Amino acid sequence: MSEIDLPEDHPRYQSLLTRHRIEEGVEKGITSKQGLIAEGRGEAFDYLLGERTIKSADAAERAAAAQLLLADHPVLSVNGNVAALVAEEMVDLADAVDADIEVNLFNRTPERMEAIAAHFREHGVTEVKGLTADGRIPNLSHERAKVDADGIGAADVVLVPLEDGDRAEALGEMGKTEIVIDLNPLSRSAQVAAIPIVDNIIRAIPNMTAHARELQDEDEARLQEIVDAFDPETALQAAEAAIRDGELA
Amino acid sequence: MSEIDLPEDHPRYQSLLTRHRIEEGVEKGITSKQGLIAEGRGEAFDYLLGERTIKSADAAERAAAAQLLLADHPVLSVNGNVAALVAEEMVDLADAVDADIEVNLFNRTPERMEAIAAHFREHGVTEVKGLTADGRIPNLSHERAKVDADGIGAADVVLVPLEDGDRAEALGEMGKTEIVIDLNPLSRSAQVAAIPIVDNIIRAIPNMTAHARELQDEDEARLQEIVDAFDPETALQAAEAAIRDGELA
Repeated sequence: MSEIDLPEDHPRYQSLLTRHRIEEGVEKGITSKQGLIAEGRGEAFDYLLGERTIKSADAAERAAAAQLLLADHPVLSVNGNVAALVAEEMVDLADAVDADIEVNLFNRTPERMEAIAAHFREHGVTEVKGLTADGRIPNLSHERAKVDADGIGAADVVLVPLEDGDRAEALGEMGKTEIVIDLNPLSRSAQVAAIPIVDNIIRAIPNMTAHARELQDEDEARLQEIVDAFDPETALQAAEAAIRDGELA
Repeated sequence: MSEIDLPEDHPRYQSLLTRHRIEEGVEKGITSKQGLIAEGRGEAFDYLLGERTIKSADAAERAAAAQLLLADHPVLSVNGNVAALVAEEMVDLADAVDADIEVNLFNRTPERMEAIAAHFREHGVTEVKGLTADGRIPNLSHERAKVDADGIGAADVVLVPLEDGDRAEALGEMGKTEIVIDLNPLSRSAQVAAIPIVDNIIRAIPNMTAHARELQDEDEARLQEIVDAFDPETALQAAEAAIRDGELA
C-alpha cells in the first residue's frame, strides 16, 4: 500500500496520487493558486495524451538524462508544483546526475521560497539553492530574474520543469542548454527548449533517473551521440499528433 | 474600462478576466481547491478549441434557451466556479427564462453554501435555493444528493454547468431534462446531457440569454421545433473535431 491507500495498479492510482500530493502542497504553503490552475491544465493535456509516456517522450527523457550526465554544472530548477508532486523523485534524479537543486518561483515570496526549501531539506537535500539570489537572468523583471550566481547563474544545463515561457526564453538566450517538461507541446517553454519533454512530470522524472542510472558508465562520445540523435521538432510534432489523434478513454 | 482595467478588445482580455474572477472567488471563500484545478482543465480545453464559441455550441445555446423557455419549472444550478465566474450573467439568464437559482456543491460545506448564496443575493437574487436541502437525488451519497424539494427536486429542466459526472447521470435518471456546459466533450456530464454545450461558461451564459430574449415571443410549437432540431451526438462530435483538428495559435 502506498501514501494514498490504493494499490499501484488501480486504474486511477496516478491521478489520485497527483491530486493528493497537490492538496498536501497547498496545506504546506508550497502550491499556489496559480499552481492549482496549472495542475488542471496539465491534467487536461495528459488526459488527451492518454495518461502515458509516449515513445517520443521516452526518447526525450533518455536524451535529457544523457545531457545532464554530460554537463559540467547541471541544475534542476524546482517550483511549487514540482516540490509538491515529485520532491523525492527530483532528489533521486539530482543524485543520479550529480546536479544541484534550485528553488525558482514565478510568484516569488519569502514564505513560499522557505517552505519549498524546507520540503527539500526534509527529503535529504543538504544545500538547496535559490535563496541567496545574487545572480540575475537578463531581460526579465526584477523578482522573476532572481537566481543564485553559483546555481542557475553558473549552470551549463538546466532542467526547468513546468516553466513559464518568458523565463524559458530568457534562460535560452543566456546560452543555457534547457530541458523543459511541459504537457502542452505548443507552449512557448516547450518550443524554446533544446530538449522538450511532453509528459507528466510524475512519470518523466523517475524515467529520466532510470535512464541516467543505465547510462552512467557510458563514455562522453556515446552520451553525445544520444543527445545529437534527438530532434526537438520531431518530438514536438509526435506529441501534438498523439494529443490530436489519440484514442480517448 | 472594465473590472480588470484592460479594454475588452485586448487579445488576452477574456483569459485575464477569468483569472481575476477566479482569484476573487478564492478570496471570498467561493472557489475551492478543486475548483481551481477544474478551471485549469477548462482553460486547456478552451485553448485547444481556439477560445471561441463554435457553431455547434451556438446552436446548443439556442436550443438550451428554447428548452428553458418551454419549461414549467426551470432551475439553474450553480456551484463555486459558476458563482465566481458568471454570477451576474446567471442572474440575467434566470430573469430572461424565469428560472430559479439553486446552489448545489459537490464538496458541500455550510460556509461555502452561505458564501455563494450571499454572493447571489448581492447580485439581486431574493430567493437563492439550495440551503433548505429537504430533497434528495436517488443513487448518490448523502451530502452529494442534497437538493431543495421545491427547487431541483421539482424542476423539469435543469441547467447544470460544470457538473460532476455522477450527479449529471443521477439527475438524468430522475427524468430531468439536463442542459450541461462542459469544455470536455468526452466527459460523462456532456455525454448524458439532453443538451450538451461545449463552450466556456463565460461566453455560453450571455449567449444563452441573448437567444432567450430573441425567442421570448415565439410560440411553444416553434420553441419545440428548435429543441427537436438539436442533436446532442452531432454537437459532441463537432466539438471533438474542433478540439482535435482546430488550428492552434
